[in-house]
Amino acid sequence: MAEINKGEMLYEGKAKRLYRTDNPDELIMEFKDSLTAFDAVKKDTLAGKGAINNQVSALLMGALGEAGIESTFIELLDETHSLVKSVEIVPLEVIVRYEAHGSLCRRYGIEAGTLINPPLVEIGYKNDELHDPFLTDEIAALMGLATLDEIARIKYLALITGEKLKEIYLKQGVKLLDFKLEFGRFAPRTDKWGGPGQPRIILADEVTADTCRLVDAATGEKLDKDLFRFDLGDVGEGYKKLLAKLGG
Amino acid sequence: MAEINKGEMLYEGKAKRLYRTDNPDELIMEFKDSLTAFDAVKKDTLAGKGAINNQVSALLMGALGEAGIESTFIELLDETHSLVKSVEIVPLEVIVRYEAHGSLCRRYGIEAGTLINPPLVEIGYKNDELHDPFLTDEIAALMGLATLDEIARIKYLALITGEKLKEIYLKQGVKLLDFKLEFGRFAPRTDKWGGPGQPRIILADEVTADTCRLVDAATGEKLDKDLFRFDLGDVGEGYKKLLAKLGG
Repeated sequence: MAEINKGEMLYEGKAKRLYRTDNPDELIMEFKDSLTAFDAVKKDTLAGKGAINNQVSALLMGALGEAGIESTFIELLDETHSLVKSVEIVPLEVIVRYEAHGSLCRRYGIEAGTLINPPLVEIGYKNDELHDPFLTDEIAALMGLATLDEIARIKYLALITGEKLKEIYLKQGVKLLDFKLEFGRFAPRTDKWGGPGQPRIILADEVTADTCRLVDAATGEKLDKDLFRFDLGDVGEGYKKLLAKLGG
Repeated sequence: MAEINKGEMLYEGKAKRLYRTDNPDELIMEFKDSLTAFDAVKKDTLAGKGAINNQVSALLMGALGEAGIESTFIELLDETHSLVKSVEIVPLEVIVRYEAHGSLCRRYGIEAGTLINPPLVEIGYKNDELHDPFLTDEIAALMGLATLDEIARIKYLALITGEKLKEIYLKQGVKLLDFKLEFGRFAPRTDKWGGPGQPRIILADEVTADTCRLVDAATGEKLDKDLFRFDLGDVGEGYKKLLAKLGG
């Protein structure tokens, strides 16, 4: 593992912190032990959760990278820290759904578990005060959150990311029901040939049990944040089981 | 005016009632004097309002019909009744916006009055219990509310209806900021050649000051339901002014 040399803290969110490094294209991401749900109305901490999510995200983003899907993940630094690319986050939450659960059911009265095929790609405006409201491509473009071209790219990347994630999980007997992604604009100041790199939209943030709805394919047992959301069982055990299944 | 021969009442909503006629393809629509806003949390009655809206809707749907946009409106029967085509209502509220106002501003924090060009066509699920939630074409299709083909047709009809409405209003010095439409599936059992008619999506419901956001183009004075929503002035006077401007 590389040496950790954290600079100024640039950002602290509900589950992560970001620090500068000497390289303007790279940041250090720290995973916290906090758990939040329902717009952070429900909060808790869980010792070891940051370490698990750091490793799960590294394993998944690593596998996505091997499949040709670029993300901000560069390498694991230690249990709770990873080196990541510095991006300008697109203020959209991108949700891909294979079954109807959660907010989709609450908003429209759709029965939980309804199969969704082809999958649905939803976008929401990342804004805590407004409770991340769901929106259309046209409204996102009108608000200047992203261009229609960027949104088309983001939705395509979300769909192919989902295909790869489903495959990875299913090999471990885990079924992916839906997940949330974030994307960033990466405009590297330097690339390996010494010039400024090609600006591009890449997968950002994290891919963990906090951002995926996952069940054991055989038993239906939940392995994700719903354990915490609805007090359904031992969250730590669920998260550890998932990490073990992914080979961490 | 035609004779009124109301049969069984088929439907009573917040602002209208529908009755059978002897012709299975035709119903009688009655406009009530009730005013409701904010999901019917705010309610009142206003003597004469039903008559005004019946006439405004007849004038506007008549003009739309002359411009080639088919609606359910057939003819005025008396002050508060019109003869209309019997359709299966598509359970979507279709909103066309030329400026940001109301729910769009509340949901996303967009500044009121922001110009929207090209106009935005939003759809919502007509469901009082769920508060008419906003949705995407894909979710509406998933829920079986309409096919993607029907939604494309509905959005196109909403846009061309808006162009015609803007023109009609502007001739009278009235600016249209946004409006709501509903559409229905009309599958006539008989047509003028004696056979079953071509099934088609047509404009339904009403086009009145209850469903349009309107201001006097010169003074900015409100002429629509916002007078009632926000207690901004004499609702009856506003509605009467609008009817007078439209030549009723």
